[in-house]
Amino acid sequence: MIWVRFLGLNWDTSVVTDYGLKYFDDYVPGASYDCGSVTVSQAEIISFATQFDPQPFHVDPEAAAAGPFGGLIASGWHTSALVMRELVDHYLPAGASLGSPGIDELRWPHPVRPGDTLRVRATVTEARRSASKPDRGIMKTAIEAVNQDGQTVMSAKATNFLLVRPDSDAPDSDAPDSGAPDSGAPDSGA
Amino acid sequence: MIWVRFLGLNWDTSVVTDYGLKYFDDYVPGASYDCGSVTVSQAEIISFATQFDPQPFHVDPEAAAAGPFGGLIASGWHTSALVMRELVDHYLPAGASLGSPGIDELRWPHPVRPGDTLRVRATVTEARRSASKPDRGIMKTAIEAVNQDGQTVMSAKATNFLLVRPDSDAPDSDAPDSGAPDSGAPDSGA
Repeated sequence: MIWVRFLGLNWDTSVVTDYGLKYFDDYVPGASYDCGSVTVSQAEIISFATQFDPQPFHVDPEAAAAGPFGGLIASGWHTSALVMRELVDHYLPAGASLGSPGIDELRWPHPVRPGDTLRVRATVTEARRSASKPDRGIMKTAIEAVNQDGQTVMSAKATNFLLVRPDSDAPDSDAPDSGAPDSGAPDSGA
Repeated sequence: MIWVRFLGLNWDTSVVTDYGLKYFDDYVPGASYDCGSVTVSQAEIISFATQFDPQPFHVDPEAAAAGPFGGLIASGWHTSALVMRELVDHYLPAGASLGSPGIDELRWPHPVRPGDTLRVRATVTEARRSASKPDRGIMKTAIEAVNQDGQTVMSAKATNFLLVRPDSDAPDSDAPDSGAPDSGAPDSGA
């Protein structure tokens, strides 16, 4: 992922190795990856929320101190975006990613406060070849972000489409001799 | 939501009225609200994604043109953040919002491209008083964002905690005479 280095941003990637995840074939259910950590400042929290989620407890330290969380907290969408960055840098394959149709069970169980450091982990939970598009697979990932005190601040179940390795065999379900439209007729008795 | 006006940002709120949604009590299941629209530029797409989701099809117009979407598209997290801004401006109550524990079934069924205008709709699907914390209620919302061609680009089911109106009656489930722990014993026959 050489292009990431061009951007010159200040993310802590020093402790995470390159896992060699390049194609769908490399993602095996059960495998779990440390995706590095990111520290978020009060200025960043206010800047994101001013643009996208200007509720008082995200943008106004004084109002936030008197509010439901007793201080400023990050927008859940900011936390999600910070976690996404770690996944792009350490988990998703730059050359084979075909995007995501969506996320299930996105949770923010504990607030993110200024100065918090979030460590991100990704665990492959499912990986199957597409039956209709043999060049790709569908991968599901359990994502978790934990703060410096061990509290989970975000979790989610993501779905991603990824290209298979160019020299991969076609999956069984795409074999030419399985083309009969009988998948909706269980045990038709013939 | 006077404080929103301080921020001086360039969002189209002109066609949306103030719905008078101030407390939990004002959200009635079935009610549906037009939450305004927002247009996203190529520069904004690249800026957000450079920081949070620097996959080639979000940050590099040339690579994106040759990529899976045939052009640059917005990060799903960017789309979500843009939609959140519309909800904060037109749907969530600035003085009574107690945050969100999470989102279910977040979907990005169609790409968002530079110049697209997204119109946001929020529909109350559930609203119940908290049994354990009588000052608040739990509201669920079906969110949908549609582009200028009528294609749905995002949908989600959000949960929010909101303060009840200060002079509201306590809910039945918090009445002192309903404290017997019998809710788990259906028709015990006595």
